[in-house]
Amino acid sequence: MLENLNRYNIILASKSPRRQELLKGIGLPFSVMTKDVDESYSSDMPVFDVAPFLSYKKAKAFEDKELPENYMVITADTVVIVGDAILGKPKDYEDACNMLRLISGKKHSVVTGVTVHTKEKTKTFSATSKVSFETLDEEEIKYYVETYRPYDKAGSYGIQEWIGYVGVNSVEGSYFNVMGLPTQKLYQILKRF
Amino acid sequence: MLENLNRYNIILASKSPRRQELLKGIGLPFSVMTKDVDESYSSDMPVFDVAPFLSYKKAKAFEDKELPENYMVITADTVVIVGDAILGKPKDYEDACNMLRLISGKKHSVVTGVTVHTKEKTKTFSATSKVSFETLDEEEIKYYVETYRPYDKAGSYGIQEWIGYVGVNSVEGSYFNVMGLPTQKLYQILKRF
Repeated sequence: MLENLNRYNIILASKSPRRQELLKGIGLPFSVMTKDVDESYSSDMPVFDVAPFLSYKKAKAFEDKELPENYMVITADTVVIVGDAILGKPKDYEDACNMLRLISGKKHSVVTGVTVHTKEKTKTFSATSKVSFETLDEEEIKYYVETYRPYDKAGSYGIQEWIGYVGVNSVEGSYFNVMGLPTQKLYQILKRF
Repeated sequence: MLENLNRYNIILASKSPRRQELLKGIGLPFSVMTKDVDESYSSDMPVFDVAPFLSYKKAKAFEDKELPENYMVITADTVVIVGDAILGKPKDYEDACNMLRLISGKKHSVVTGVTVHTKEKTKTFSATSKVSFETLDEEEIKYYVETYRPYDKAGSYGIQEWIGYVGVNSVEGSYFNVMGLPTQKLYQILKRF
């Protein structure tokens, strides 16, 4: 599958072990290389544009002039959106608990932006999934944060962890997108790249 | 969590490694014991009733008189429904490919029925998720069946395998339910058992 990509050395520019696992799931060989990128964005940017914008910024950190012909860079950024607010990674224990209190008992959006970048072509897209949480009680929130320490996770939760098993009623859209990579959409784009 | 169940020895009556993994995800200690059960059902049974009916039958195979006071048995059955037809496990290679051709490019339902059974109480419920598949081409169908041999899977696919990564557009409902156990609904029922 994806023999059309055989001419490329594929680089996933993400430290996230979840994203590495998801790209593996598609069946593509790749290596991992990351660059430090300033992840700021304009405060008046529409919230649904932030994740694709940041994925584009991460891809452009691989300067065209230093990118060899046969390299393809894949970057991604995931944000959790509640109402008009973006939830990033929690600063500390209390911040993590507060984020979970915010998403408890309601539906929020998870947007992953992805950029596929070669010397000739750059393609950015995004996918949105809606996640409904059951009402979480204080005991559940504290148990989860203490046990799973979700400090590297936007919105303070991993859907593939205990909180996802017991707290998520329903997903509308791609489950893997909530984990950090919209694998099906990425596969379709790579097939036609 | 679920300290209310400490008085029970919990038995998961399922050979499925996926279900064992999902029940582990809830954080409950359990052991596995299965009984042979006749999995037939009346041909005029409404298709959405079949999975809960079969889970009930599997639970009742643990006769009340032999079930000790402090035991809780959890059973489950998952079916794939396309239109009015139930897709079971495929008989052979050709049957598996035909099932995938049938679900390609459309939406189907996955119903998991669950029964929680103790000497005093038996509770049966079910959860339905809708799964949308992208159009799969013949090369993808054959590659999947040859590589993943989905002969133990209702509908001939595992959503957590390659075909799920590249072929599933969208799930409405619980993702874990599609894998074989509606963990969130089960957790809520166990909390109040």
